[in-house]
Amino acid sequence: MEITIALVGFGNVGQALARLVDAKNPALRENYGLNISITGVSTGRHGCAIDSYGVDISRMLEAIEQTGSVSGMHSGKPIIDTPDFIRRVPAEIIVETMPLNPESGQPALDYLRLALHHKRHIVTANKGPVAFAYQELKSLARQHNCAFLFESTVMDGTPIFNLVRATLPLIDIQRVRGILNSTTNSILSRMETGMSFENALQEMQQAGIAETNPSYDVDGWDAAVKITILANVFMHARLTPHDVNRTGIGALTVDDVQAALRAGQVIKLVCEARYEHGAVTASVKPVALPVSDPLAQVRGTENIVSLETDMISRITISEGEAGPTATAYGCLVDIINIARGYR
Amino acid sequence: MEITIALVGFGNVGQALARLVDAKNPALRENYGLNISITGVSTGRHGCAIDSYGVDISRMLEAIEQTGSVSGMHSGKPIIDTPDFIRRVPAEIIVETMPLNPESGQPALDYLRLALHHKRHIVTANKGPVAFAYQELKSLARQHNCAFLFESTVMDGTPIFNLVRATLPLIDIQRVRGILNSTTNSILSRMETGMSFENALQEMQQAGIAETNPSYDVDGWDAAVKITILANVFMHARLTPHDVNRTGIGALTVDDVQAALRAGQVIKLVCEARYEHGAVTASVKPVALPVSDPLAQVRGTENIVSLETDMISRITISEGEAGPTATAYGCLVDIINIARGYR
Repeated sequence: MEITIALVGFGNVGQALARLVDAKNPALRENYGLNISITGVSTGRHGCAIDSYGVDISRMLEAIEQTGSVSGMHSGKPIIDTPDFIRRVPAEIIVETMPLNPESGQPALDYLRLALHHKRHIVTANKGPVAFAYQELKSLARQHNCAFLFESTVMDGTPIFNLVRATLPLIDIQRVRGILNSTTNSILSRMETGMSFENALQEMQQAGIAETNPSYDVDGWDAAVKITILANVFMHARLTPHDVNRTGIGALTVDDVQAALRAGQVIKLVCEARYEHGAVTASVKPVALPVSDPLAQVRGTENIVSLETDMISRITISEGEAGPTATAYGCLVDIINIARGYR
Repeated sequence: MEITIALVGFGNVGQALARLVDAKNPALRENYGLNISITGVSTGRHGCAIDSYGVDISRMLEAIEQTGSVSGMHSGKPIIDTPDFIRRVPAEIIVETMPLNPESGQPALDYLRLALHHKRHIVTANKGPVAFAYQELKSLARQHNCAFLFESTVMDGTPIFNLVRATLPLIDIQRVRGILNSTTNSILSRMETGMSFENALQEMQQAGIAETNPSYDVDGWDAAVKITILANVFMHARLTPHDVNRTGIGALTVDDVQAALRAGQVIKLVCEARYEHGAVTASVKPVALPVSDPLAQVRGTENIVSLETDMISRITISEGEAGPTATAYGCLVDIINIARGYR
């Protein structure tokens, strides 16, 4: 079976996915009788290309490295813009890995709507559209008999949505807690050793983990976007990130962090969603956790989610250090699930 | 869709499963169009019953509580023994939850073989048969187009086998580490506070967690049985528990445990399977872990497994305190998977 995909967004994750598809196609054929073919790529600043026979992946990666553009691989009528690309690319699945606009999910959200209206399955690694329009995209997908999958939006490729969907049938999730922002967690780990907030942040920026404008991480917005997705998907909430009760780590001092340590606690930026008076409320805030809490020992860029349920008291899943390959793997799993019939 | 199951073994887990089926059948019908019917129960010391119309679960639980036997619910020719029960019970799935014989997996292993020869799907919560005959049962099941599932054998109902099978396609697991024995982990947690090994063990026995003969836990045999299953299922090994390089916790003193703590380490009974010179080797032994290791903070009866893979550096999953309901839930998930077509 041949499955055709088009990539919208071709940064680190998009390129890692192309590499992964190239490397894993033999195993996919052997294990699932499946061959993935990339029939189009639409990038932000490196042009677009459609090839209905499937692009040569190594040639395309070479082209972007040497010429900075994939446009040379396009044949046929020029592509005007991303909507034009989505309408024309002969692909069953649109895989969207654009940079995040955390305030609105745009323009990715509009692209995903367009793809669904054209009866394409969608896979996204982009938190924005899922945080702002999960219910809408889900019903739009259902209406067009299409899949809408987003495993990589939280914890990279570590399975959290698939864990619940595929391995925990009938389960009732009563509370979700997590540590989901690498920058703030790394800053707090450094502050435990006595480093100031400012120096810790600077180190994270130099390492390329924190953004030049760090407020998105430091003020808890990124974490709020993620807990919104978990609350909406796992607890049937209808929140947006604006509904999350949010406190960042900017007011914490080294003294606060070290005093907690002396008291046998660890301060973490904890995301939480739970039922309260019959509704789901979500929060992001610094919490002093006892060291015995499974969330307490997550260091640096590791992420963790803990689920409290009716049938298993607590299930916790965490990931080690992750890069673009892990995120791309999450997209690949979504593609395989669609190819195997999941809607 | 109606699916018929027969329970072989009706202790805590078997009874919890019966209760769960009773409680969850409405949700099963609504979500999966599925109704589970228990057409037979075979117990160790409380009789047997077959009812091809499906037993009344609350009446059966009442009967065992009041009369100590389910035999009063049987109609038709008397049932001679468990093999006779397996041959005659009109059930698509045999769910085996007998007590473990850790040295050989018998007699459960023979019962599972018999069930497969009679073309019944098998679900087991019993580690023995899986540790001693995974490959054999797997090919026997394949030969008869039957399923052979065992989610509850490791970490109760917390999904570990389903995690890998259903959410991590194509992944290459290079190393498995875990803390999988509740008794020894609880003893070590108590020794950290200064309690002697003997007193800690006694507390565990009084709490009903450790056996009267504790050597099965303390000498690492239970952990060896579990790492054997993980190595065979995840790494294509062909080990038996006798192949595991095994050291128990009997030689550890409070001084050892507390000296490690002072050095920023935690002593745990760690199970491990990894590739070495092209083959899989497995071990169970006390290891002083740095506190930053995800395995280090697992307390008391909690269990944890950490997978190192080619595409995601490390995925760790853990369970909180678990009882028979969690184990029964793992069996229920296996039943649902079989009903939905998994072989």
